Amino acid sequence: MTKTNPGNFFEDFAVGQVLRHATPRTVTAGDVALYQALYGNRFAVQSSDAFARAIGYERAPVDDLLVFHVVFGKTVPDVSLNAVANLGYAGCRFLAPVFPGDTLSTVSEVIGLKENSNGKTGVVYVRSTGTNQNGVEVLDYARWVMVRKRDESTPAPTAVVPVLPAHLPPDALGAAVPRLDLSGWDDALSGSPHRWGDYAVGERIDHVDGTTIEEAEHQMACRLYQNTAKVHFNQHTEGKGRFGRRLVYGGHVISTARALTFNGLGNAFAVAAINGGRHVAPSFAGDTIYAWSEILDSRAIPGRDDVGALRVRLVATKDQPCAAFPDKGDDGRDDPAVVLDLDWWLLLPR
Amino acid sequence: MTKTNPGNFFEDFAVGQVLRHATPRTVTAGDVALYQALYGNRFAVQSSDAFARAIGYERAPVDDLLVFHVVFGKTVPDVSLNAVANLGYAGCRFLAPVFPGDTLSTVSEVIGLKENSNGKTGVVYVRSTGTNQNGVEVLDYARWVMVRKRDESTPAPTAVVPVLPAHLPPDALGAAVPRLDLSGWDDALSGSPHRWGDYAVGERIDHVDGTTIEEAEHQMACRLYQNTAKVHFNQHTEGKGRFGRRLVYGGHVISTARALTFNGLGNAFAVAAINGGRHVAPSFAGDTIYAWSEILDSRAIPGRDDVGALRVRLVATKDQPCAAFPDKGDDGRDDPAVVLDLDWWLLLPR
Amino acid sequence: MTKTNPGNFFEDFAVGQVLRHATPRTVTAGDVALYQALYGNRFAVQSSDAFARAIGYERAPVDDLLVFHVVFGKTVPDVSLNAVANLGYAGCRFLAPVFPGDTLSTVSEVIGLKENSNGKTGVVYVRSTGTNQNGVEVLDYARWVMVRKRDESTPAPTAVVPVLPAHLPPDALGAAVPRLDLSGWDDALSGSPHRWGDYAVGERIDHVDGTTIEEAEHQMACRLYQNTAKVHFNQHTEGKGRFGRRLVYGGHVISTARALTFNGLGNAFAVAAINGGRHVAPSFAGDTIYAWSEILDSRAIPGRDDVGALRVRLVATKDQPCAAFPDKGDDGRDDPAVVLDLDWWLLLPR
Repeated sequence: MTKTNPGNFFEDFAVGQVLRHATPRTVTAGDVALYQALYGNRFAVQSSDAFARAIGYERAPVDDLLVFHVVFGKTVPDVSLNAVANLGYAGCRFLAPVFPGDTLSTVSEVIGLKENSNGKTGVVYVRSTGTNQNGVEVLDYARWVMVRKRDESTPAPTAVVPVLPAHLPPDALGAAVPRLDLSGWDDALSGSPHRWGDYAVGERIDHVDGTTIEEAEHQMACRLYQNTAKVHFNQHTEGKGRFGRRLVYGGHVISTARALTFNGLGNAFAVAAINGGRHVAPSFAGDTIYAWSEILDSRAIPGRDDVGALRVRLVATKDQPCAAFPDKGDDGRDDPAVVLDLDWWLLLPR
Repeated sequence: MTKTNPGNFFEDFAVGQVLRHATPRTVTAGDVALYQALYGNRFAVQSSDAFARAIGYERAPVDDLLVFHVVFGKTVPDVSLNAVANLGYAGCRFLAPVFPGDTLSTVSEVIGLKENSNGKTGVVYVRSTGTNQNGVEVLDYARWVMVRKRDESTPAPTAVVPVLPAHLPPDALGAAVPRLDLSGWDDALSGSPHRWGDYAVGERIDHVDGTTIEEAEHQMACRLYQNTAKVHFNQHTEGKGRFGRRLVYGGHVISTARALTFNGLGNAFAVAAINGGRHVAPSFAGDTIYAWSEILDSRAIPGRDDVGALRVRLVATKDQPCAAFPDKGDDGRDDPAVVLDLDWWLLLPR
Repeated sequence: MTKTNPGNFFEDFAVGQVLRHATPRTVTAGDVALYQALYGNRFAVQSSDAFARAIGYERAPVDDLLVFHVVFGKTVPDVSLNAVANLGYAGCRFLAPVFPGDTLSTVSEVIGLKENSNGKTGVVYVRSTGTNQNGVEVLDYARWVMVRKRDESTPAPTAVVPVLPAHLPPDALGAAVPRLDLSGWDDALSGSPHRWGDYAVGERIDHVDGTTIEEAEHQMACRLYQNTAKVHFNQHTEGKGRFGRRLVYGGHVISTARALTFNGLGNAFAVAAINGGRHVAPSFAGDTIYAWSEILDSRAIPGRDDVGALRVRLVATKDQPCAAFPDKGDDGRDDPAVVLDLDWWLLLPR
């Protein structure tokens, strides 16, 4: 019997099953600095203890996406080691702020299963929850992946497909952001004069800049997140594979694009929720990532007059500037330069 | 109206104008570790809390050049986004020590303007000041850059050219170094038996070693410093540009050369001032940086018997060892291997 | 007289000589994060303050190999700058836990000297000891290197060859691990259900995964460790040398392989001792490292019922998966894919 982890196959999952993932991880100022070096964020709240304190945080919180990547990374060995494809995300909410020194753990519950008609694979739906050392939930999200069966002759389980929200409602947003004292918000230091109310639904923003991805960078990112998906690390096997190259973790592209959005959304300091997203095409080292955003909705958050929410579509491309907002064509097909199409709620000061 | 930052053009600057830059940045032990990993410094004062305490610091201070890069990085979006060239630096003084946990902000004042005779560009002079969370100034320096005009028909402003010091006087040095108790200075641990008095004016030192720059390294450095200059990050556009490659931030070359100087100047633990410097030629990933130093002057600091100052010229080359001290030829032209020619004051224990 | 360090030549060493090495180094959460990003370890004890506290540590200790690399790095300028070859290690013991904030220093004593018959080189044996800021020894090990003579006509010293242990006895193990309260050990969080007693002598484990090394990664690693060996950093000279490329620090390969061992030895959270090891072949950027382990011995530690020791042989290969356990052939020659053959004691909960 092997002592190595073969990962779970489709038949190993059952609806209601709870997976407690290894490895708990204390996030530190070191991780924050690496995240900074990998993406170059400039949001003042996460960058400066002084700025964060001036508006009501105890100190600068850890970047929301760093929290996401750490919580997500833990699920890989149990959920997606034998995955054929990542199919989607939904209902990702940021529930409490994370500060350096907090220890994050992840638990997943299987919330759906549906074997594919080919009898070789099935779709596994999980809800994963990240908690801190005090048991406080900091993040949860649903994810569904296509997983191989170990044995094609195993009978299919009863199909259970969870109902997942197309997008989260405004009253589900903002739990990870304390009530802010906006008298301490300084637009010169935050880098943008544009508050929540300055963005109009339908507005499109070209984030102008581009960033080229390097192998060492995306590998270091994944290792920081303890994300062990083999495709990101092993040129010896990937070189013989479908793409001939290591695949960049989709989350690395999200974080790269997120950093670019500072130029145009400089006050959108917090990710309140990720409604869903598609990794439209793979990214590789050497690709230069550009991004543009579209304001899909603008909503006040019930009970809060400090921050408002923008529902934003974030589109990232490779080797294609976004001045022309590359998008789906009339035939509904994605522009071939598009690598990411994300739908999220961002918070800005009012 | 765009919400992205178009940067300032020459006509946007006025003498006396004050620019409060985004983003304040708390420097942490994480940043210090990344700086270590990027350059490999071995100066004991910055490397060891125990060594630093033994001589009178409260703990190991943050490397002077890391402070410089963080303070400098903030100015890029406002000062040099539309710059054609970085023309020079002067009068850069380190004014107070920075420790992990301090938050750095930068303000610049326009101290000079001079349109070029071609009517297309002009020179902007700024004095930038970095302060910590208590409002204490930690660094200031003058810099001048050539910036494009938005509209060539705009009339030229009255030319104001500030008088800048060719080099700082000894009594302007040392504010960032507390009075040291040299009974705690251990030459074995610091790595060099050579104190301030052991260096002679005119002495030249070949720093022997060479370091090859990688794309991932200089990109991570710039992102750590929140330096957003496009030329460092975007292979998609730079590949079509003048050099066909991403340009390495000049400050990355300075820090690389500074780390090399440990071998020969191991006790020169603090940069007191940068008198001026030229990035003689561009550097790219794959270049191997070597360096040599020349002692230009040696001066006691009025009122201090703990440390003395050496005015040092630091020359860095690429793909050329420095045993022969590559320098200007008889025609006054730089040796083609030279990439950096810097003039600074370093402090050593007496 | 030069102020740069020419390194020691064979004639510069004398048995009994003590070398106090520069530079003391405070290890921080930043270094821990970089180590994480460079190797991707998933051992819960080092990753999580909460997990570490639950079993009796004051907080998460620094990874043993990070301690080793920092202690080792300091010896390079004094011991191996003029080394022709690293010949071996023996008797490496981890003696006390290291936590972020501790400052590490290294002292070496020359314990043996033997000139080679060619009269050009000799073998230098040193015992190096790493201590923390309180003078507590955290690590010691013997190492022997072949060093060039400065002058071949210098007479050979009396040969002294120290007797070094082939491997450490069980009662020499475990000093760096406090007595653990295993009621707090959670196998789900640690990532493996396999405790000390579950491993059988003779058992072999293929660690399955592979990791490709990048230039930026191994350079950043060496600089983090202040390891200044020229061969790792200088493509300009190495490009003209024997391999045409920069050589990867052998310790980087050890740490890469160690991280791979998590898959199969997930509860082997501590390195108690390194009995010996050979860097069988050089590694370069672009190589993909795989690893397998063999259980050589399994021993209780006298006086302890919390942890047990496994003596493990760790073999790493490049560009060769380890399902077939690539090893020496019948002729005693190493498989050409093998780069590392290490013998160490690992600790696991009982």
